[in-house]
Amino acid sequence: MIKLLAYNCTDLANKEGELSSYSHRTHTCGELGAKHIGQEVTLCGWLQYQRNKNFYILRDWHGITQAYVEKNDIIDKLYFESVIKLKGEVRVRVSPNKEMKTGEIEVLAKEIEILNPAKQSLPFEVKDNQEHNEVLRLQHRYLDIRKNSMQRNLRMRSQVLMKIREFLCTNHNFVDVETPTLFKRTSGGAQEFVVPTQTPGAFYSLPQSPQQFKQLLMAGGIDRYFQIARCYRDESLGPERQPEFTQVDIEMSFTDQEKVRKLIEDMLVYSWPLEEIQAPFQRFTYDEAMTMYGTDKPDARFDFKIQDVTDVLQEKVELFRFIETTPETDKSKPSAKNSIQIIVVPQTADRFTNSQIQNYDDMKTWSSTITRHIDPDALSSICNKCDVKPNDIVFISSGQEYQPHAVLGKIRLLMADLLESRDVVVRDLDVYQFLWIYDFPLFCPKEDGSGLDSSHHPFTAPVEKDKELLKTDPLKAKGQHYDLVVNGVEIGGGSMRIHNSELQKFVLDEILKEDSTEFQHLLEALASGCPPHGGIALGFDRLMSLICKTKNIRDVIAFPKSSEGKDLMSGAPSQISRKDLDNYHISVKDY
Amino acid sequence: MIKLLAYNCTDLANKEGELSSYSHRTHTCGELGAKHIGQEVTLCGWLQYQRNKNFYILRDWHGITQAYVEKNDIIDKLYFESVIKLKGEVRVRVSPNKEMKTGEIEVLAKEIEILNPAKQSLPFEVKDNQEHNEVLRLQHRYLDIRKNSMQRNLRMRSQVLMKIREFLCTNHNFVDVETPTLFKRTSGGAQEFVVPTQTPGAFYSLPQSPQQFKQLLMAGGIDRYFQIARCYRDESLGPERQPEFTQVDIEMSFTDQEKVRKLIEDMLVYSWPLEEIQAPFQRFTYDEAMTMYGTDKPDARFDFKIQDVTDVLQEKVELFRFIETTPETDKSKPSAKNSIQIIVVPQTADRFTNSQIQNYDDMKTWSSTITRHIDPDALSSICNKCDVKPNDIVFISSGQEYQPHAVLGKIRLLMADLLESRDVVVRDLDVYQFLWIYDFPLFCPKEDGSGLDSSHHPFTAPVEKDKELLKTDPLKAKGQHYDLVVNGVEIGGGSMRIHNSELQKFVLDEILKEDSTEFQHLLEALASGCPPHGGIALGFDRLMSLICKTKNIRDVIAFPKSSEGKDLMSGAPSQISRKDLDNYHISVKDY
Repeated sequence: MIKLLAYNCTDLANKEGELSSYSHRTHTCGELGAKHIGQEVTLCGWLQYQRNKNFYILRDWHGITQAYVEKNDIIDKLYFESVIKLKGEVRVRVSPNKEMKTGEIEVLAKEIEILNPAKQSLPFEVKDNQEHNEVLRLQHRYLDIRKNSMQRNLRMRSQVLMKIREFLCTNHNFVDVETPTLFKRTSGGAQEFVVPTQTPGAFYSLPQSPQQFKQLLMAGGIDRYFQIARCYRDESLGPERQPEFTQVDIEMSFTDQEKVRKLIEDMLVYSWPLEEIQAPFQRFTYDEAMTMYGTDKPDARFDFKIQDVTDVLQEKVELFRFIETTPETDKSKPSAKNSIQIIVVPQTADRFTNSQIQNYDDMKTWSSTITRHIDPDALSSICNKCDVKPNDIVFISSGQEYQPHAVLGKIRLLMADLLESRDVVVRDLDVYQFLWIYDFPLFCPKEDGSGLDSSHHPFTAPVEKDKELLKTDPLKAKGQHYDLVVNGVEIGGGSMRIHNSELQKFVLDEILKEDSTEFQHLLEALASGCPPHGGIALGFDRLMSLICKTKNIRDVIAFPKSSEGKDLMSGAPSQISRKDLDNYHISVKDY
Repeated sequence: MIKLLAYNCTDLANKEGELSSYSHRTHTCGELGAKHIGQEVTLCGWLQYQRNKNFYILRDWHGITQAYVEKNDIIDKLYFESVIKLKGEVRVRVSPNKEMKTGEIEVLAKEIEILNPAKQSLPFEVKDNQEHNEVLRLQHRYLDIRKNSMQRNLRMRSQVLMKIREFLCTNHNFVDVETPTLFKRTSGGAQEFVVPTQTPGAFYSLPQSPQQFKQLLMAGGIDRYFQIARCYRDESLGPERQPEFTQVDIEMSFTDQEKVRKLIEDMLVYSWPLEEIQAPFQRFTYDEAMTMYGTDKPDARFDFKIQDVTDVLQEKVELFRFIETTPETDKSKPSAKNSIQIIVVPQTADRFTNSQIQNYDDMKTWSSTITRHIDPDALSSICNKCDVKPNDIVFISSGQEYQPHAVLGKIRLLMADLLESRDVVVRDLDVYQFLWIYDFPLFCPKEDGSGLDSSHHPFTAPVEKDKELLKTDPLKAKGQHYDLVVNGVEIGGGSMRIHNSELQKFVLDEILKEDSTEFQHLLEALASGCPPHGGIALGFDRLMSLICKTKNIRDVIAFPKSSEGKDLMSGAPSQISRKDLDNYHISVKDY
């Protein structure tokens, strides 16, 4: 399904012996073929299974090789997954196995050394074609990692990382700077783990990203920074969350949005391990994405786009007339824009029964009760305008601003899942549809209505033409932020940052009502000759999960935490001793 | 003093424009020369200083370029360290400056854009030739990093890292695996920071190294692992300590000590940024190192080796006769070996006055009072045996085991420092004398005498022939551990690990009296088909400090903590809020 990378591994495999340098083996279990016949070789690996009496299959991650063992009294007593070293001669196989990479040959064993016997009953078999309970897998991760699928995921992860570094560091002179993970707690850092120290009451904090440090590096004249950064976030977990995660963190001076996006496109094209991806990526403004897809992370691999039918229905439909009379609850705010939106899911109505989905049979007979409220002329106008045909399903929604879009955006995805579960091809699973979303609002109202929040973070610069709006109507200002989205998943975000100290102070103090003294070091850095700069951070675990087509990011992480934040193998987190608590001058409450 | 790496930067600089891709500049401030005369260029950089009325020097880390600014009313109002963009034409310089890389040309400014003005008074000037107080430097690290020396250190660090990765990952198929830093507290982990979680009483621990994980990866069939790993250690700090540090972490299956050492030698030769180093490195057993240098981290760049004179003095010297009658305090232990050792520091006595050091004038007249107790024949024998000449200084010490060696080993280093402070050349500061030390004792007595400790860690395998000693006389067993030492500094250590589950359990339970259930997951992994394996970890901060010849490791770290563990820029560690404490179910004691 997923090819191994053309670069690196295959190149190495072609260099005879390179995969086995500094090792007791002469070859891996995946590389012997006809050309080795007659050679004396040494293989090391795991005993995978036995055929008949004398045939044993030896495995390492590179492949499997059949060994013929004449005197099998030593090896015969071993349990599968035992580790052995085998010296012997490569010979032609009497009945070749064309399905097997090394199927033309077998090794006639001359010396066998048992390196480490495995115990009799392992918690599960090392086989890819068996679905094991994830708890069991995580408890015995060292066994789980032996599977081909996990080997492939982890090795591909390493290779993609290496290509990214090569692109940034070797080819484009980015400087790999390791920034601290023991940092200062800020009042906004609600999701940051804390680390007590031996000084009573003094705590470090594990930062969610190297954001401040990378900006300080720009002030420090490191004009091109990158880091594969370990980041921490203490929040409710889920399939896509881990308390620690990896981010490809990039920042540049003397650049702009377009250039950062171009850099990332070039970097991904360079390091992409699957079928080539096309750049430049499509790009939508936030408003375009919301209008067409009802989300700022659209999956653009399929259509079902949202269409505006306000003009057709507004006057004619009893049901939607309310939108004209929606009272303006807050006269100080601009009046919310109301609309009626639809999506058309073509040629699928016959996949559902009436009880499953309210469908319509032909242009005349709509099955939904909603149509009773709609003027037939209006229905006909919608059909014309939106090219609705018999056997299509139509979803309709109305509301303020992007409310109807958001509803339809969710339905759009649900329908895709539903149809795919019924074997309708909606999305091409081998396509990676990268999108840039930009021109986001810089601020949004706080959930409790008490003021404004940054849409992303307080360091995002406004777009040039909206600078004045910060003082008059900040909610209208767009930010120089951009998100990178693949197949409906946000895998990165970045922005041009505020480089003017006064503007940064104004945003913190006046707009966000935060305590800017907490950022005094950053404000001073900006005032000390800091170049304009911007960057991006890509969620590397998510990116790899997409590349490896895994169900969750845990499958591309060697030792992930469970969705409850636990290391099921070692039992972390766990109680610590009284002595440890004393050492850090803390005690445990509510216990 | 230190050349920039031949690889990478220079290669890139030769690729015109590559250093300025994705940027508003066309060139850096370090690359324009005669061949660019007549070209229109754009430079971005920091205003370094002004000469006369119209000449301005623009700086970035690549160098400095002179700009001629005719109408200087904009730029004239700026303070130094302001950031500007300058567009203009390269022209020949009337009075070339041969000391300056770009001294043949200047840029005739046509457009100047002020990108970010700097405030008037910065805490210190961005100049290398000024020694600034380190507290001030750390408080304003973003300014400090602009200095050439810090730019060079950080950029060289990045380049060396990249070469190490290239060697391991690209050239030799090592898999870069990121292991967790939120792990489980073990009772032995006294120096591990703890991280409270939202579950009352449950803590993660920040591990001191990925030791357990890399062994689990070997059990998992990742036959070649590496990671540039962030590690944590909560201990008393000092010039060479940081609470977080970076280690080049490597582990391999199906290998042995020799092969790991060869790998590291090849890796260092490949990635070494200075004058080529020679491999294979010299190697000493622990006993050889102690016998010759009185330390297991010898600085072998100079001589003054320790010499045994027991046979000459033992019978004849009143003063040393005690060593024969030292009572055996513990009859169960083998009798301690007593000896008399000397070092000879040649041709340096005249550098000191009698009051500074007790010297001797010629073969006949020793100046030290100690000689009164020594038979003249014995003195003469020493001179013959150890080739002592007039004007040499001799240090003598006696005691049990390596006690006299340890004393003389310290004196040896003190003398080297002392002599160098008096301009005697003792060590070549451009030489990197790498050494392997191996065959360490596997265990040592606990400081409180209550039992045995691992000399390194409990996972180190004994040498093959000493396996039986574990059950009979574990103190006599040697371990398969090796240290890498450069110029007297230990920069790495590693070992072959125990891969047999029962042996590991025996060492934990029976020899070290530790609670092996804490390592149940590791023991199970070893019993589930774990290949023999071993590896090494190099302290990357120390290595870079040696390469960059800095006084302490802080100068090769972008944002180091002070020697008290503080981030002087942000003020970490700091108090956290009541709400934060409640969130983690802890309270602060002794406060």
